[in-house]
Formats: sequence, C-alpha cells, structure tokens
Amino acid sequence: MERQPDSRRDNEPLSVASGIEMMRLAKELFPICRSITGDGVRRSLEILGRHVPLDLTEVPSGTQVFDWTVPREWNIRGAHIARLDGTRVLDFAANNLHIMQYSAPMDAVVRLEELRRHLHALPDHPDWIPYRTSYYNENWGFCLAQSQLESLTDPSYRVVIDSSLKAGSLTYGECVIRGEREEEILLSCHICHPSLANDNLSGIVVATMLARHLQQIQCRYTYRFLFIPGTIGSITWLARNEGRVAKITHGLVLSCLGDAGGMTYKQSRRSDAAIDRIAAHVLRHDSVPHRIAPFVPYGYDERQYCSPGFDLPVGCLMRTPNGEYPEYHSSADNLSLLRPESLVHSLGVLQRIVAVIEGEATYRSLNAKGEPQLGRRGLYAAMGGQRAAGYDQLALLWVMNLADGCYSLLDTAERAGMPFATIRAAADALARVGLVEPIA
Amino acid sequence: MERQPDSRRDNEPLSVASGIEMMRLAKELFPICRSITGDGVRRSLEILGRHVPLDLTEVPSGTQVFDWTVPREWNIRGAHIARLDGTRVLDFAANNLHIMQYSAPMDAVVRLEELRRHLHALPDHPDWIPYRTSYYNENWGFCLAQSQLESLTDPSYRVVIDSSLKAGSLTYGECVIRGEREEEILLSCHICHPSLANDNLSGIVVATMLARHLQQIQCRYTYRFLFIPGTIGSITWLARNEGRVAKITHGLVLSCLGDAGGMTYKQSRRSDAAIDRIAAHVLRHDSVPHRIAPFVPYGYDERQYCSPGFDLPVGCLMRTPNGEYPEYHSSADNLSLLRPESLVHSLGVLQRIVAVIEGEATYRSLNAKGEPQLGRRGLYAAMGGQRAAGYDQLALLWVMNLADGCYSLLDTAERAGMPFATIRAAADALARVGLVEPIA
Amino acid sequence: MERQPDSRRDNEPLSVASGIEMMRLAKELFPICRSITGDGVRRSLEILGRHVPLDLTEVPSGTQVFDWTVPREWNIRGAHIARLDGTRVLDFAANNLHIMQYSAPMDAVVRLEELRRHLHALPDHPDWIPYRTSYYNENWGFCLAQSQLESLTDPSYRVVIDSSLKAGSLTYGECVIRGEREEEILLSCHICHPSLANDNLSGIVVATMLARHLQQIQCRYTYRFLFIPGTIGSITWLARNEGRVAKITHGLVLSCLGDAGGMTYKQSRRSDAAIDRIAAHVLRHDSVPHRIAPFVPYGYDERQYCSPGFDLPVGCLMRTPNGEYPEYHSSADNLSLLRPESLVHSLGVLQRIVAVIEGEATYRSLNAKGEPQLGRRGLYAAMGGQRAAGYDQLALLWVMNLADGCYSLLDTAERAGMPFATIRAAADALARVGLVEPIA
Repeated sequence: MERQPDSRRDNEPLSVASGIEMMRLAKELFPICRSITGDGVRRSLEILGRHVPLDLTEVPSGTQVFDWTVPREWNIRGAHIARLDGTRVLDFAANNLHIMQYSAPMDAVVRLEELRRHLHALPDHPDWIPYRTSYYNENWGFCLAQSQLESLTDPSYRVVIDSSLKAGSLTYGECVIRGEREEEILLSCHICHPSLANDNLSGIVVATMLARHLQQIQCRYTYRFLFIPGTIGSITWLARNEGRVAKITHGLVLSCLGDAGGMTYKQSRRSDAAIDRIAAHVLRHDSVPHRIAPFVPYGYDERQYCSPGFDLPVGCLMRTPNGEYPEYHSSADNLSLLRPESLVHSLGVLQRIVAVIEGEATYRSLNAKGEPQLGRRGLYAAMGGQRAAGYDQLALLWVMNLADGCYSLLDTAERAGMPFATIRAAADALARVGLVEPIA
Repeated sequence: MERQPDSRRDNEPLSVASGIEMMRLAKELFPICRSITGDGVRRSLEILGRHVPLDLTEVPSGTQVFDWTVPREWNIRGAHIARLDGTRVLDFAANNLHIMQYSAPMDAVVRLEELRRHLHALPDHPDWIPYRTSYYNENWGFCLAQSQLESLTDPSYRVVIDSSLKAGSLTYGECVIRGEREEEILLSCHICHPSLANDNLSGIVVATMLARHLQQIQCRYTYRFLFIPGTIGSITWLARNEGRVAKITHGLVLSCLGDAGGMTYKQSRRSDAAIDRIAAHVLRHDSVPHRIAPFVPYGYDERQYCSPGFDLPVGCLMRTPNGEYPEYHSSADNLSLLRPESLVHSLGVLQRIVAVIEGEATYRSLNAKGEPQLGRRGLYAAMGGQRAAGYDQLALLWVMNLADGCYSLLDTAERAGMPFATIRAAADALARVGLVEPIA
Repeated sequence: MERQPDSRRDNEPLSVASGIEMMRLAKELFPICRSITGDGVRRSLEILGRHVPLDLTEVPSGTQVFDWTVPREWNIRGAHIARLDGTRVLDFAANNLHIMQYSAPMDAVVRLEELRRHLHALPDHPDWIPYRTSYYNENWGFCLAQSQLESLTDPSYRVVIDSSLKAGSLTYGECVIRGEREEEILLSCHICHPSLANDNLSGIVVATMLARHLQQIQCRYTYRFLFIPGTIGSITWLARNEGRVAKITHGLVLSCLGDAGGMTYKQSRRSDAAIDRIAAHVLRHDSVPHRIAPFVPYGYDERQYCSPGFDLPVGCLMRTPNGEYPEYHSSADNLSLLRPESLVHSLGVLQRIVAVIEGEATYRSLNAKGEPQLGRRGLYAAMGGQRAAGYDQLALLWVMNLADGCYSLLDTAERAGMPFATIRAAADALARVGLVEPIA
C-alpha cells in the first residue's frame, strides 16, 4: 500500500496566482516603518483592510493590561547622523532599520566615544544592519553595517532623531469569519516589525489570504485573525477578551512562512492539544520536510496565549524558526528572502489543517458485527485473489473497523497511516450507503 | 547473564516424525479442489477427521449471516478450452487453478476477443497460473500461464465449464478439546483454497497436529479449532455462535506456516490483548527472526473476529504473510514451497504459546520481607564471591522479588528478560519449598 | 541555547583536599580483614567514628531476622599452608584474601588431592587472588594465584587456620544527621569486604565525606548512613527498624565509586521513584558519561531494601558495576584501582543529588495571566531584537510558565532541559521580586 501525499497539484494555476498576490502585498507593506504603536501599524492595517474585513481597536497609552502598561505611542519622521559640516553619514530615509525602535527625539552634537555606545552592528555580517528595539527603557540608538560603523572617525557628530514619544494608543486589527459554531480558531500574527520580510510580512500575507479563502467556504467553526504588535499586543488583546478565551478550541501563531526552509510546528504548552495532533498529522503527510518542536516559553505570542493562566491550545507554524536563519532580525531579511512557492505551500498547509479541524468527526458503524459486504454496494472489487486491497478499499475497511464510537476520523487516519482526506472520503462513501453514521 | 533461547533440541527425533506426518497430510489434501462451499471442502474435512475428532456443520444456502447471505453451493467436475477441432488447449484436469472459482456452467463457442476478457495470467511470472475467484458476482473465467495465453490465436474457441451453482450448503469443521475451564482458545484456519500449499494447507496441517498434541495433555483451557472457508465461514460461525464469543480469551488465525521465512505475528485489533503479549514474548525468545505487525483490517479471518462488534483478542500467526511472498495466490505456491522443518518450527511456536497460556499464574511470596535464605533450602550456591548469579539462580531471585501479587509469571519473565519456561520452573521450585504460593 | 554542565570547577582546591582525605582514609582501612562479623568490622567502624558521629549496634549470634539467623562471629588471627618441613608456601599474613571467609579452624596434614578441592584461583588471571566466602555452609578454603596453586606439588601439606567461629554478634554502624523533617534519606554501604578497594572502601569513604558535608549545612531531610555487612546486615537492620522504613523517602546504596569508569545508576524496583528521576537528572547534566541500569534483584543491599515487603525507593549509585570490571572480587581490586578524582566526582554527584532532594519545591505564579514584565524588575535585557534569550533569562521564563502548581522545579528543569540548579536559582530570583511563591 503506497502512501499518497496530499499534494493537490491540480491547483497549480490557482497557486501561482495566489503566490503572485501574496508577493505583491508583501512588497506594498515592506517599506512602511511599523513598530508596536504608531502610524506605521495603522497604515499597514488599512492596506490589509482592502483584502479582508478588519476591525481596528485603539487602546490608549497608559492602559493597564495585566502586569503591563500600554506604552506611549512612537512615531518617527526622520533621523540621521551627520558630520559637523552637515554631510549625512547615516540616514533613516535609506533604511528604517537604521533607527533603534522607540528612540527618543534628540538633536545634539555627540562625541564619537559616546555615540559608539548607541551604535549597533553585526561584526559577523559586516554589510547587514541589525534590528534593535528599546520599547520599555527610554534610550536612543542607531543600527548600521559594521563597515559603516568603522568609517565613523570624526571626533564628534551631530545626531538628529525627529521622533515623537507621547500619549496616543496601541492599534491592532481583528478579522472575524463567523461559522456555524461559537467555538473559535485563533490565528495570530505580529505586525510590529519594520522592513523585515520573512519575520513577519510572510505571516501577515499568508494569514490574509487564508482569511479570504475562509470567507468563501461555509465553516463549522468561527475563525478569528489577530494582526497585533508582538507581546504587548497579545497581552492587550487577552486582557480585553478574557471572557472569550474559553471559546478558543484551536489556535496558531503564524510567522516566518516565506523562506525556502521546511516546515516547523512548535507545539502548544499542553503538547497534546487537538491542534498539536492535527498540525503533526498534516505535516507528516506533506511532501516537504518538517520538524515538530516542543513548546519553549520563548518565541512569538504563543508565549502569552500559553501562559499558565490561559494555557490555550495555541501552537506556532513557521518554516525556519526565529533565530535559526542567519538573516533573522537584520536588513538581510528582505523581500529577496521570500519565495512565492513557499508562501503558497504554507497557505496550503494551513488550508489542510483547517480541513481537518472542519472535517473531524466520529462515526458509528451500522453494521458492527463482521465486515459488511462492500461488494454488493459497489464499494469493493468484484474479483478476489489479487495481492492486496487497493488503497481506497483499505481506507473503507479502516473506517468500518474503527467506527465503534471511540475513534474519530483523525484517530482512524493516524492508525491507518493515511492522510485525513482519504479517510474522510471513505467515511463519506460509507455514509452514503448507510453503513456508518456520524455521532452528534 | 546469557539469554537461553528455548530451543528444545532434545525433541529432534519427534520433530522429524511430525514433519514427515504434516507433509504427508498436506500431500493428501493438495490435489482436492476446495472452494468456499462444495464437495472439495467436505472431502478435505473427512480426511482431517481421521486425525482429530471433527464436528461438521452444514449451513443452507440463503441463510442470512449478519450482512451476508450464505451463497449457492458450487461444484465442479471439469472445464476446458478447446480448438474448434476439439483439441483441448487448457484443461481443469491438469490444474484446478485453471478455473476461476465459482465460474458458472457454460458450453459455448466464444470469439477470442471475448474469451480474453475472461482469461487471467501473471505477465511478471509468465509460467505461473494465478488464483482468482468471483464468489458474489456471477461470472466465469480461466486462469493460465502468460505463455499459454499468448499461444491462443484462433479466432474462436469452445469453452466448456461443467460446474453447478445451486442451493446447497456451506460446510465447516470444528474440533473442540475440552479443558478444566469453560474459557476458550480459538484457533481458526481457512480451508477454501484449492491447490495452494502454504496458503493454507500449512495452517491446516499445523492446526491438526496441534489439536492432536492438546488431546494428549490435560489442559486448563478449552481449545476450539475452526476449519472454515475464509470470510463467509468466520462470519457464519460468528453469526451462529454469538453467545459463545464472550468465552474466547485468546485466539489465533493460522495461515502461511510452512515457507522458509521467519515468523510474523499480526496483533489483534486491541494490540494489548494477552495473546498479543504472549505471542510477542514467545517469538522474542525464539531462535528464528520474527516481526510483530500491527493490526490492519485486511488479511484473513481476524478481519471478522476483530470487527468492532466483536473485537475479540485474536491475532494471526504466519511465517511470510499473505501477499509478501512472490508465489502467493499462484500455482507456484505448491508443495515444493513447504519445508517440513518450518512446519515443525511453527508447531513448536504454537506449543510454546499454549504453554504460556496454560502456565500463566500469579504467585505471592510467603517471605516478602527481605530475600529468603535460598542456600539453606538447597536453591543457591554454597560459596560466595563469584562474578554473577547463575542463570537459574537469577530466575529464582526474580520470582521472589516480584511475587507481590501484582506481577504474573509472564510479567516476571518480561521484566527479567527471560523465557517464560525458565521463570515457570523457578516458581515451581520455590513453591515446592513453600516460599511462594499461587493466588487463586 | 547551550547546555551548561553543572561542573563546579570553582571548587577545585577543595576537591583536591577531599580527594587526598578520602584516599588517606581508604589506605587506613585497606589492610583490615573485614567480614560480615568480627573485629575487622569493629576496627573499621572505630576509624570511621573519628570522622563522623557513629552509633554502633551489636546483634547477638542466633538472633532471628526474618528468614535468616545472625551467624556465629568469625575472627581470624592467622592461616597458612606449609610443607611438611615447616616452610610456609601460603600465608594469610601476606594477603587477607588468601583465606576463604568463615573458614573453620583447623590444623591438619592434608593430601594434595584433598587440599586442591579447597583451593580457589583464577586461571584467566594467573597472578590474582580471588575473594571467596562460605558464610552459611561450614567449610574451609584458601584463595591463591593460579601460579602459586600450580607450584604445589608435594604429596601432602600442613594446613593451619587459626580462626574462631563462635557465638558473638554482628556489628553495624549508623550515622544520623537530623534535618527539619522526620522523613529520611537512606544511604547504605557494605563494610564486609576484606582488602578490596573499589568494592567497597570507595563507597565507605565517599559516604563518610558526604555525611561530614551534610553536618555542615542545615538540611530539610534527615539523613541516615548505614555501614553494614552485605545482605545479612541490611536484613538485620530492616528487621530491627520495620517501623522506621515508612519514613524513608529516598535511598541509595553506595558502592564501587572510585574506579576510572563513568557513572552507573541502578534504578529502584519501582523505577519511577523520586530518587530514580533525581539521579537520572543529575547524571544527564553531568560531564561524565553515565548509564541508567534497570533494577535487577542481584547486586548489593538494594536487593533487600527493594524486596516486595518493603519495596523502598532505593537505587544504587556506582561507577563500574559489580562484576563488570575485571579486577572485581580479586586482589587486583586494590588501592591502585582508586582514583582520587573519581572519588571526588562521585562525592560531587551525590552532593548534587542531595541538592535536588533539598531544593525540590513547587511554586505558584502570582502573575499567571500573560508573562510578567521582567524588564522593569531588572530581570530582563533592556534592549530587544537579539537572536535569543540568554540562558538564565530562559530559565526565568520557564519557571514563570510552569508555575501553575502542577510542575515542581525538577519537572520544570526536566521540561526545560536545564540543570536543576539553574531553575532553582531562577525561582529564587522570581520569588525575591514577588512573582512566584512556594506552595506549602
């Protein structure tokens, strides 16, 4: 019996189109300087709102959210370092990574020795600009290539940061696609990074396309997409939605979904939640190599969803995880790192995960004693003696054999070593001839 | 501590005799054209009945058995394909595999093009005749070597099938060897194949010899041997014995037990039934390589015994499994495939499985606090300081250590990594000196 | 995240000192002829009593202890084999292994043929003297090098054994270090071997140093060290302390702790006792290779502590186990086999095991919903964007994430894959800022 990877090659033209569309959206979002608050986030959500219905929430600075306080809003118009003769040697206009996020406004001449304490570079990658932040500790800084850093030799430079750091609000977007049930699937991605592509424009564009796909089908579950700043965003959302979390039956944080690497599924804190089994099942039957990583309380917003007071069934789907690709958190994580075929494949994996969530059910045999005679129902080969049952015939036998009310279709797929879709199709065929029925 | 495979080489002359006897019985049964009904089955059961007490049951055609109906009885006297000048080019008399089982009677001239749709061959093995059936879909067909098929070039042939397909009955045989208890061990083998040796004359002759062996010893359990046609036979037996199945504590389907390959034990649907543990234990301590295969709802009559309404603790013991040896379901599965030493070894494995079923018990220590002084009871070496306890001394220590009422002798054997027989002998020695007693 | 083996190299000068001290103590004890009773044991315990407070117990010969009887006391002053002209060819004075333990007194001329039945050598190691005993079967014997044995060619020899075998007592020592709780940690080592170094002067000197270390710290648990003859000693202690055993929460038998090999932890009979987890945890984070061996009812006094009537949570800590190094139970197991650095390392492992026993606790988060803001408490890096959390920051996140009352600190360390000490330090830091509190 051969395994049939659920490859869906028949969707290829559609795939190419959606790959092009995701790349186009990523390119549009790339130049915007996002942070955990500010106009960059608002402009990005406005763009996403053209693709899917999006509710925006503004939470005022100073709002207490559990152990945290919503910070002041940060906006930046420009920043540079110049020689005393006015020649700019580093300019935010060239790359928004040049400014450490949340740098306070300033305009001063600074001696090189002091300036150097505020400059960040990557000696191992002398041409890349690192990404640095100082959200909760007022400070200022510039990030630059090691080569640029070494070229600064004047005794003093003029440093200008045209930023504002004042009372405002934290902004996040929410897209809810209602299904038949109140139970919710949470899909969360962080939108706080400036010009970084894989982390996390990839997660944002895949989430957007998935939401659009779900709008077009009738779902059993309700799907909630969160487009939020990392850490403070999820904490804020949780603090404002404590009553809602009990409805979340499955969840995924989406990030780093566009690089050339294989898939990584990071388990929820529980490690045995339904989403953990489903993601592992789908990846096991996928043609791309994958890795199941245990939960670690470091990473993305699963840290908050899986904090002990919530302990939600939320895992994290990635290709190459945070910190494991060299370009991570640097200017090298740019659009050239994104592969349209990776974005399309990531979207496909998510669609197959959704198909399991939606299609999971438990059946009861209406012919429990002995096998039913499948042949007279047109479900079995007429002639006997051949070497083995066909692949789909074996799926029928598995569904009948395990339709005792104890095994779900996913349980059956796992025990049979077959993809969920094959088992689901067999159950449908058997239900049509009245041999099994779903248990409510 | 070295492992001692339970090899029983001291029984060698007895083994040779039983090997010769099993081969002789297989040879006697081989030429008979058996099917799922008919005189071939009756003649075969009559021969077996000379070796062991056998009750025959006849179930009329048309009897409803769960989802199935006992089919019409099929008998065949002859069949051939002839040139229009009368020269026979294929004759059932030469090999009973030439006729597709349950072929309807006919006598007609058929054009080659039409005839070819009723001819079955094996292009990959051009000299072998395949085995084909069409029990539940009225049809006719001939099986032949690819070389024979290619030599048919006349425009038309005369096709004669001197068969009958009419109301009659399905026949099966049952051999019950009563033990002290009502609990039963079910041993089932299919008898519906025509001239095929490993599948399943091997299972039939090994079962027969095992039954004869059990007649000669006093058993705790009752042993029920079923000689039945595949699928419809086990379904018929189950339908007629629903009240009895609750008494079945262990069961094995026996097939393909004569080839040169290692042993295969296919687990019951439960996978953790006592028979699953026992078979795995015996094979682990056997000198022949083995494989434990998980349950799959395809194979032999375990499909019926393990259907969800019964879910009996029935596994399947084989050497090379169905479909995994090239000669499977072809004329190459003939007597030359059977090895007397394989039949003898398969019988030995079954005897050791029976020995565990019969010898399994739980003991309680009568000296639970600290070790007993085995030396003063003559059960321990008098002199100390040597490198390690002898093998049998270690068995004594294991039995004493685990005689807390929670570990059975099989549990003890498994934890100790020793064969059951060694642990059983240690328990007997300790019981003789009053250090342990069985728990009722 | 790199693993940090808990190597404690900063204690090196202290380690050298304790290595020298343990070697000195082993040298002092080495020449004494110990057995399961007698003055050799008393003299040894007197020496140990100079290092740690030791209570001595004398149990009269003939005392019934469970299935056993305390044997007569054996003492030996001298023994030799001489030619009939008086020349000694073998003398106990040269090596106390020359006499089989518990040899009865005698003075007789014995024919070579008869004498040979009482001589024990190791043909595979012709220069080594074996160690042999006959405690419970009155006998006599000499142990000698194979080369010595072969040089005995006179027709008769005079055999003199100046021993006594009479009513007396069995002696054992007990060192109890009281902690806050009544629950006890049992540490047991056998003291019945004559001039053998690794088995078990190593265990004795490491136990002594550990007891001295524990005297210097304030412990939660009470620690009970037993210095006892093997088998009969532990049985005697158990028979006299049946009421106490319920207080034993963890235990270790200590032996063979001075050779150059890696560590071996032999599990308790239960295999999942706290001590089994703790020992495995400490060894997993140790820099020296180790092996976890399953319980076997053969070895040292764990055989008695783990007999079914007690089933105590007692494992056995060794370097190379009994019977697995060639010098075992022979004159080659002498002081040259002991390595001071191995003794020191074994002591370190035991101290780390004690640190887990003492430091194990369960914490509850006082900030369960979402992560706390560690940065404003000085526990987190001020600047974000770097590749990964620092090792200790990750420990803080793990403790917070698992502080739900279900995970102990050891559970947390195991799930995090970090040494217990790192997790313990993180919990202390978090408790200081009021983010977690211990559950009583």
